[in-house]
Amino acid sequence: MIGRLNHVAIAVKDIKTASAVYRNTLGAEVSDVLPQPEHGVNVVFITLPNTKVELLEPLGENSPIAKFLEKSPDGGIHHICYEVDDILAARDQLKAQGARVLGNGDPKIGAHGKPVLFLHPKDFLGTLVELEQA
Amino acid sequence: MIGRLNHVAIAVKDIKTASAVYRNTLGAEVSDVLPQPEHGVNVVFITLPNTKVELLEPLGENSPIAKFLEKSPDGGIHHICYEVDDILAARDQLKAQGARVLGNGDPKIGAHGKPVLFLHPKDFLGTLVELEQA
Repeated sequence: MIGRLNHVAIAVKDIKTASAVYRNTLGAEVSDVLPQPEHGVNVVFITLPNTKVELLEPLGENSPIAKFLEKSPDGGIHHICYEVDDILAARDQLKAQGARVLGNGDPKIGAHGKPVLFLHPKDFLGTLVELEQA
Repeated sequence: MIGRLNHVAIAVKDIKTASAVYRNTLGAEVSDVLPQPEHGVNVVFITLPNTKVELLEPLGENSPIAKFLEKSPDGGIHHICYEVDDILAARDQLKAQGARVLGNGDPKIGAHGKPVLFLHPKDFLGTLVELEQA
């Protein structure tokens, strides 16, 4: 079912400092900071030859990553995103196997303009998994 | 400097149960369990179209992932590995910029038979970063 690793998302307190780590220290191709108020985050895309890393900084109140950063103030890997060909079929297949889909189970439009779903970390080895329609 | 995302490593308590999650629930291509006593882990490779996910289970005493699993008993993402063309040049460049390389700074032979180094999570946004010679 799962296809490409679309991205690994790293939550950070200060996205400018974090961008500098990837741009200057690790010498990667790093985008500008892109505010995504509808997702409660500022985002920076790091383009690697085969996939992306995304840096996420809380934006506004009720940011979905605020709680994560309270527990891990240095930052850390927040989630991992896999592509699926058919997100509704994937959701139904996962639910039939007892896996928990977060929210009401309806895909939302994610940061790349495509339908996404999040899966419960307790069902996926302690990792928050995002599925994105390929 | 950094090139491809070589793999994302997920530490797990029980690698057989974890393998079943990726093989059956997520429908991925999952290897057999490969014991790597020299690294203190059992490993399973999950082959995605563009990169790999590796499941790591503690093996023997003094496993490098035992402490991580004490803190995160459900498992979780343990490290992320980027490829570099020249690991010694990468190390020297990172050290010159003040980044901390773990251990004595000499590359060791990693799970894929290539030289690897680990970088201090405090210098890399709370994420343990492995560099592997491409």
